[in-house]
Amino acid sequence: MSASPPPPADAVIALKSALGPSGWTEDAAEIAPWLTEWRNRWNGHTPLMLKPATTAEVARAVEICARYSVAIVPQGGDTGLVGGQIPYGEVLLSTRRLRTVRDVTPLDDAMTVEAGVTLLEAQQLAARADRFFPLSLAAEGTATIGGVISTNAGGTAVIRYGVMRDLVLGLEAVMPDGQVFNGLKRLRKDNTGYDLKQLLIGAEGTLGVITAATLKLFPIMRSRATAVVGLADPHAAIQLLARAKSETGGGVEAFELMKRVGVDFALKHIPGVREPLDSVQPWYALIELTSGEPGAAEAGMERILSAAFEADLITDAAIAQNETQARDFWKLREEQSAAQKPEGGGWKHDVSVPVSRIADFLDEATAAVERFEPGARVSAFGHVGDGNMHYDVLCPPGADLKAFLGRWEAGSEVVHDIVARYEGSISAEHGLGRLKTEEARRYKSPLEIATMQAIRTAIDPQRIMNPAVLF
Amino acid sequence: MSASPPPPADAVIALKSALGPSGWTEDAAEIAPWLTEWRNRWNGHTPLMLKPATTAEVARAVEICARYSVAIVPQGGDTGLVGGQIPYGEVLLSTRRLRTVRDVTPLDDAMTVEAGVTLLEAQQLAARADRFFPLSLAAEGTATIGGVISTNAGGTAVIRYGVMRDLVLGLEAVMPDGQVFNGLKRLRKDNTGYDLKQLLIGAEGTLGVITAATLKLFPIMRSRATAVVGLADPHAAIQLLARAKSETGGGVEAFELMKRVGVDFALKHIPGVREPLDSVQPWYALIELTSGEPGAAEAGMERILSAAFEADLITDAAIAQNETQARDFWKLREEQSAAQKPEGGGWKHDVSVPVSRIADFLDEATAAVERFEPGARVSAFGHVGDGNMHYDVLCPPGADLKAFLGRWEAGSEVVHDIVARYEGSISAEHGLGRLKTEEARRYKSPLEIATMQAIRTAIDPQRIMNPAVLF
Repeated sequence: MSASPPPPADAVIALKSALGPSGWTEDAAEIAPWLTEWRNRWNGHTPLMLKPATTAEVARAVEICARYSVAIVPQGGDTGLVGGQIPYGEVLLSTRRLRTVRDVTPLDDAMTVEAGVTLLEAQQLAARADRFFPLSLAAEGTATIGGVISTNAGGTAVIRYGVMRDLVLGLEAVMPDGQVFNGLKRLRKDNTGYDLKQLLIGAEGTLGVITAATLKLFPIMRSRATAVVGLADPHAAIQLLARAKSETGGGVEAFELMKRVGVDFALKHIPGVREPLDSVQPWYALIELTSGEPGAAEAGMERILSAAFEADLITDAAIAQNETQARDFWKLREEQSAAQKPEGGGWKHDVSVPVSRIADFLDEATAAVERFEPGARVSAFGHVGDGNMHYDVLCPPGADLKAFLGRWEAGSEVVHDIVARYEGSISAEHGLGRLKTEEARRYKSPLEIATMQAIRTAIDPQRIMNPAVLF
Repeated sequence: MSASPPPPADAVIALKSALGPSGWTEDAAEIAPWLTEWRNRWNGHTPLMLKPATTAEVARAVEICARYSVAIVPQGGDTGLVGGQIPYGEVLLSTRRLRTVRDVTPLDDAMTVEAGVTLLEAQQLAARADRFFPLSLAAEGTATIGGVISTNAGGTAVIRYGVMRDLVLGLEAVMPDGQVFNGLKRLRKDNTGYDLKQLLIGAEGTLGVITAATLKLFPIMRSRATAVVGLADPHAAIQLLARAKSETGGGVEAFELMKRVGVDFALKHIPGVREPLDSVQPWYALIELTSGEPGAAEAGMERILSAAFEADLITDAAIAQNETQARDFWKLREEQSAAQKPEGGGWKHDVSVPVSRIADFLDEATAAVERFEPGARVSAFGHVGDGNMHYDVLCPPGADLKAFLGRWEAGSEVVHDIVARYEGSISAEHGLGRLKTEEARRYKSPLEIATMQAIRTAIDPQRIMNPAVLF
């Protein structure tokens, strides 16, 4: 991992003086937790961690860094899985102290919060205003709004509400020269030139520091039905998904696929996880329907599942009879990743392909992985409704874990080459970060990479913003 | 209107040779209709009209133009209202012959069509695949997919489905140097760097020529209810809108506001338009609800209108009893613009403000306009559900029309300054084009303009793409 050079002493003095004693730290113990992440794949280092509490402080800090050509890694809740938030010599700029809720305006179905508000807090703010903020993911208690925007996060409700990009009405950001871009609009329509916020969303901190955002809110749904169904294979899942979408006019809020091996891991390693059906099935789908009409979600679920049984698409099913049962179904899904840990490490992939091709992709990738690494266990699960699978390959039982992890890169190439042939993406929702930036050069066209570089150079000519990440 | 210099003779020869006899024209009669538009506000000129039939031909043409530094204006169906498609000396590049439907894949809820397919044809293609393509606007029989993407068009279903930006999964475009950007993805999630298609959407042809797009499709709804209600003022409309959204969990597909004066014009000038209610009302809202559940839209409409009567929010209402009546309601709305024409010209505005502030904006703007131009008639109508009003100011009866139109710019400044104070946009859905680019400099921040210019220079260093449009 190449490291950025240390900042000049004058720059450090200027930064400390600009932010005051509560705005920075050099205390190794305070900094340590923010130099790694939950998979412990990265262990970074930084000469200085900045903790600005206001947009003006962020602007002052970035302006000083720009003046001294000091590189910055912005960081939110440190829940990213690809290392984009971990500094290697750069100044670490934490946005967690940007905590102000600027406004909540239910008539606009909008709220403006600063970058350090967590995703869970944003959901709760919306609920208190009798509205719904739909982005939801396992790390929501820690992940910050600034982070989920910078990484264009996805999660479990994308099929209905879209990814984070679709949920942002406006942005405020500090640009790489320290100027503040004020794009905090509550407008649904604005055609007055390039939509600059679209560039900042998903830019992984390479074009500026997001300091606040105006988010879209939605009405609260009046009925909800959750079911787990057993399926012979992912081909049946795709057919069932299409029927569910048609039958409900878009009322599918989640459609998640799990392989039996992942269910086995969860039952074995995670306390409180229950067998979801009476029978054991090769594949499972967790389906959630919602509707603005009372009773409509439940009625729709009954209709869809009856028809699916008749068409031999599903082999077993259970509809949650209460909140607790629905939570149990979700727990089974949400623990899929954590349940792998005790089984030894794995090659992780966060890929997407067109929904129509996901079953073919799974067939082909799994055959190829089994050829490449005999005995490896594929635990595929994820947001099949979005064509997005977390396709994890676990070490063969009894094999040398370290040697297996050493083949991660070569193994990923096997998987990602198939993804590319299916016109898919090697990073559906996690971003490229430090993990995949180099690898992505294999799959992006030279034109795309050159265009991204030209844009980046135009906006950050010194390349001080998260320099090791993206192109 | 400053004009681009004529292209060198060598460039013209090269372009003709590259595209062959059916790929270009210099015939004044053939070109004439494409140098103006339906408001007859622009009358442009061009040395050469290019009519490529394939992406490869577009690429060859643009590459030649780049080599000779020849400016290009791309044009779709020529339905734009701000002159962005009208050349003044530039080569006119029509995309209307790019007509191939590349694929329709219902399991992906996606289809890929070339830029010259009309919006109406796209809707029909979707319907044949048992899907729905939601973008809908008055010019849909003529407007092309390339055009509605380049201008990020809006229309009547934005409240539920979003603007064109929200409906594009992937793009193919010829960049300003003639290279083809192949971003025709059917993916719902892809986080591998900046989302370049977002830059091209709404760029009004300044960053490249869009040649094809992969569009999102949606399920067909199973119930639909259309109503016209009478309202005392727009404040009541906003309250009613919020209730309708809450009550239906987002089932509002259209919420359009009309002022009585516009209804009067339509009744007077448009054959077949009927009085929508038994009573005469100061303001009207056209509401359309849809649902995936059979019967739910009708039930929801009854529930909402009953509650609105009880709360004194509405003073009269009619629910369409059949398709014909629903079409009559829509005709009244869709003819609002055409019905103004016989009343003499007007200052047209396409503005948006936050939904919560639209009533206050209308109050304040109308008072200001009446002070500025006593006797002028304000005909405000539009997509109040998106905060977007077509705010038109018509000549006082009997006044000198030419002198009145001469005050357009000053009058618009009165309206747009109020829009700016309400944190709105001076072009909600039409774009800036030739009409509003200069004016927009008053309202965009220097940072935004400089950033847009830097991006444009990075992508089109010679500024050959639609040079008079945007910054």
